[in-house]
Amino acid sequence: MMGPHAMLPVLAPPPTKGHLSIARLTREWYVACRAEALGKRPLARTVLGVPLVLFRDGEGRARALLDRCPHRNVPLSLGRVTFEGHLECAYHGWQYDGSGRCRLVPGLESDAEAERDRPCPSAAVREQEGLVWVCPAFGEEPERPPFHVGVRELEDEGHAVVVREVEAPGTLHATIENALDVPHTAFLHRGLFRGVERHEVRARVRRTPVSVEAEYVGEPRPKGLVGRLLSPSGGEVEHWDRFFLPSIAQVEYRMGPEAHFVVTALCTPVSDFVTRLTAVAAFRTRIPALVLRPVLERVALRIFAQDQRMLRAQTENVLRFGGEQYMSTRLDLLGPHVWRLLRQAERGEPGETVVEQEVRFFA
Amino acid sequence: MMGPHAMLPVLAPPPTKGHLSIARLTREWYVACRAEALGKRPLARTVLGVPLVLFRDGEGRARALLDRCPHRNVPLSLGRVTFEGHLECAYHGWQYDGSGRCRLVPGLESDAEAERDRPCPSAAVREQEGLVWVCPAFGEEPERPPFHVGVRELEDEGHAVVVREVEAPGTLHATIENALDVPHTAFLHRGLFRGVERHEVRARVRRTPVSVEAEYVGEPRPKGLVGRLLSPSGGEVEHWDRFFLPSIAQVEYRMGPEAHFVVTALCTPVSDFVTRLTAVAAFRTRIPALVLRPVLERVALRIFAQDQRMLRAQTENVLRFGGEQYMSTRLDLLGPHVWRLLRQAERGEPGETVVEQEVRFFA
Amino acid sequence: MMGPHAMLPVLAPPPTKGHLSIARLTREWYVACRAEALGKRPLARTVLGVPLVLFRDGEGRARALLDRCPHRNVPLSLGRVTFEGHLECAYHGWQYDGSGRCRLVPGLESDAEAERDRPCPSAAVREQEGLVWVCPAFGEEPERPPFHVGVRELEDEGHAVVVREVEAPGTLHATIENALDVPHTAFLHRGLFRGVERHEVRARVRRTPVSVEAEYVGEPRPKGLVGRLLSPSGGEVEHWDRFFLPSIAQVEYRMGPEAHFVVTALCTPVSDFVTRLTAVAAFRTRIPALVLRPVLERVALRIFAQDQRMLRAQTENVLRFGGEQYMSTRLDLLGPHVWRLLRQAERGEPGETVVEQEVRFFA
Repeated sequence: MMGPHAMLPVLAPPPTKGHLSIARLTREWYVACRAEALGKRPLARTVLGVPLVLFRDGEGRARALLDRCPHRNVPLSLGRVTFEGHLECAYHGWQYDGSGRCRLVPGLESDAEAERDRPCPSAAVREQEGLVWVCPAFGEEPERPPFHVGVRELEDEGHAVVVREVEAPGTLHATIENALDVPHTAFLHRGLFRGVERHEVRARVRRTPVSVEAEYVGEPRPKGLVGRLLSPSGGEVEHWDRFFLPSIAQVEYRMGPEAHFVVTALCTPVSDFVTRLTAVAAFRTRIPALVLRPVLERVALRIFAQDQRMLRAQTENVLRFGGEQYMSTRLDLLGPHVWRLLRQAERGEPGETVVEQEVRFFA
Repeated sequence: MMGPHAMLPVLAPPPTKGHLSIARLTREWYVACRAEALGKRPLARTVLGVPLVLFRDGEGRARALLDRCPHRNVPLSLGRVTFEGHLECAYHGWQYDGSGRCRLVPGLESDAEAERDRPCPSAAVREQEGLVWVCPAFGEEPERPPFHVGVRELEDEGHAVVVREVEAPGTLHATIENALDVPHTAFLHRGLFRGVERHEVRARVRRTPVSVEAEYVGEPRPKGLVGRLLSPSGGEVEHWDRFFLPSIAQVEYRMGPEAHFVVTALCTPVSDFVTRLTAVAAFRTRIPALVLRPVLERVALRIFAQDQRMLRAQTENVLRFGGEQYMSTRLDLLGPHVWRLLRQAERGEPGETVVEQEVRFFA
Repeated sequence: MMGPHAMLPVLAPPPTKGHLSIARLTREWYVACRAEALGKRPLARTVLGVPLVLFRDGEGRARALLDRCPHRNVPLSLGRVTFEGHLECAYHGWQYDGSGRCRLVPGLESDAEAERDRPCPSAAVREQEGLVWVCPAFGEEPERPPFHVGVRELEDEGHAVVVREVEAPGTLHATIENALDVPHTAFLHRGLFRGVERHEVRARVRRTPVSVEAEYVGEPRPKGLVGRLLSPSGGEVEHWDRFFLPSIAQVEYRMGPEAHFVVTALCTPVSDFVTRLTAVAAFRTRIPALVLRPVLERVALRIFAQDQRMLRAQTENVLRFGGEQYMSTRLDLLGPHVWRLLRQAERGEPGETVVEQEVRFFA
């Protein structure tokens, strides 16, 4: 009750209009976990606020049910997976198969009796490129398949690929805007990511009904630590930031023929203010991956820790004020586009055909 | 704010109808504490959400007042009991007697002036069989006396009697259903309470306007640890599970002439989702009580810890989904009857005359 | 969720009328911090629920802005103050001057472009007697200057002056009533502040439209530790308790010519249930200040710790019951007057002209 002051409601003016950049796209695929994390034990995951339990059925297929036993509402994720691949509730031992059908009620004479009208809602699941994707809208399956990252293709081209999972204390929109935002890197990640010198940069923004991309022209090789590691010989940089509906953020750097770097952040809205990122990082440089990987990983985690702190501060302040009151400039290249795409998708509105614009700024 | 995901509201479907099995029977007796726990210091107890302070007056009688000083609303339980048996507030020293009458306001000239219009609401209290019972409805006293456990009678018949207090993170209904539920014991308490082999059992359920009882016929001696301890020579078992309004759960086992075991759980609804149990366990076996008691106590506490974990998971999930969505089978022998009795009592409806039914299942 | 019982809502009767002694006077000066605490780093302070960031501009003047960057709503207090005295946001590096004008958006070509329509609300600030005062109503400045404590004058008369900041878990009204209440000192601070013997005391209360004062006549020298320290030779005591709108509590003791003691508590409502006190204590006795100061400080902190515990218990109980249900006697000399003044000021009603009353009691 006497909690930290930071969380107290604002008593006096100024009020906000109470806007929150939250779009809940339920009929979509989201990453639930890495395929290798789903073994013999059930796994609890929350997607868009929906508690799910994931497990592998008798054929080893990944399955997802609502994480609530229809009998007495205990989470099924507290139970275990039986030898036949049924999910058994820890309280009374009721068993469900991968489709959510009740297969056993201990104490009832026949299986037929157990199956009667006691299904647990099941969610569509896809296993693809080493990831388990779910659709949190029960009984529905998105028309499009999950986003194709292209892990195999990248590896075939000589990239090293690393997958890491992190959690951001921000809305899906704030998290994606942060991931694709260039101007903050010069401040928040000073030294780590970008240098102090600034150059005029041109960016071409291209929005389709389901994605938006910014292509940067004239950007010099980053002066920061990341830049020196990626491209020791310097030179011109090709750089793209991309968003794909419903929740994919992608950053790609190409520095001549020697270095290529692409990070795809597959975002899962856990709840309105918590977003999980499954980051698939692929890189190919002149430095052996074995040497570069641990360095890159440390740098990436430090960058993410700084972003995480800022997203938490932003979320807490927005909640404290009862809503967002943002003010954008033309430097906020992608955030407003991402919001427009999310909003249109939530409302089922058709997106505009291709929109292009060009922006100049210093980076 | 960024709390554990388990507590986030469910954003997407499926919705629940928002039902909660909560009945608030205020004009009833509930155990507040053991008589021996009420000594020279005031004791704070919450019953059905009502904060009470218990203390002993000048004659040693247990008394209960609203735990809020009428002057500046500080809890009286922070104060002390004076030599004369008055309860003194810790803030300004106002004193109240056992009936809630204000007897002293330090600084005022006369006692008469102090007594003027400053009473603290008092609740009816009964001391019986070593327990202090209260009625949380101020100014009212239930017609029926508190539930008679029969401690003296049990001791006279050679039983050892142990009293223990525990707290369950569940509604009164969920806690009592759990205490009287047979099927879950084979899973949750596997090995501790019941064995793996299963036998057909017949149960006769008998409901009166104020109670419900299940009598089990054909049950073999439990194979688990508890069974081996209670009745070393095996044989047929007589077993009854009972509920008495407003909040008493009772389990009785009789194994031939050699072993008798009866646990009476006197439940006190602390709040909608927290229930205190004062368990009076009486047992008579061929093993000396001195040897058996510590073993039984350890087993009972392990069983309760497992139930407690399950009740907490159930309560948290029910709150996360915004309500219960239960599905019962005929194995849920007493829970639905208990709910019907609680509901009728809350609404002041007359209960049906005796209802009987017979159920067969495997246990 | 399964938090301590003390915080559960009261389910059963008795209900309260839900009154809370909360008045929110926004167009007033409140102490934000000590002047010496405001150095090179921005400082976050909440006043009446309004998050503010304080910093010193290029000329060293104390300034206050809303603690929310207009760009992406991150608290500006996480940033830093630049060499020119601008406040720089930690996220994207936007800079604001002391008036809240945006002076730099990194990446935009010109300062003129940065300044366009991106102001951050600024609050009026005054630096006076070593304290920084703010008015939490943006764009408004109270007509009257902040309360004049008279530190310089007291020092010139030979007083030692000590300033300490503490936080009380109570409403502004409860905190001020506690600070000016005489009867509780005999109980709560038994031995520390007052002795056990009691004498008849007369108090003359005088209320103006903006203040109320109680003057005590006939009070003997306090028997407690504080009394012995202040006035070793004993004798008659002059004692005044005072409240000045909006939030000043003052206690003054004079014991003959040898000892004078005045504590002015400048209260800042952080939120409805948290009040910060900046206590300015001035004393002049026959004991050297160097000797007396550490003793007085320890005693004062113990007294405050006891008051703090009682205010917390009061606040928690009031919230648990959903409102206050106070009952006053004529011993509650100033609390009701303070509430009337706060209430009238909040409603903009003119206060009554001078009101006088005399009260007798034992202290």
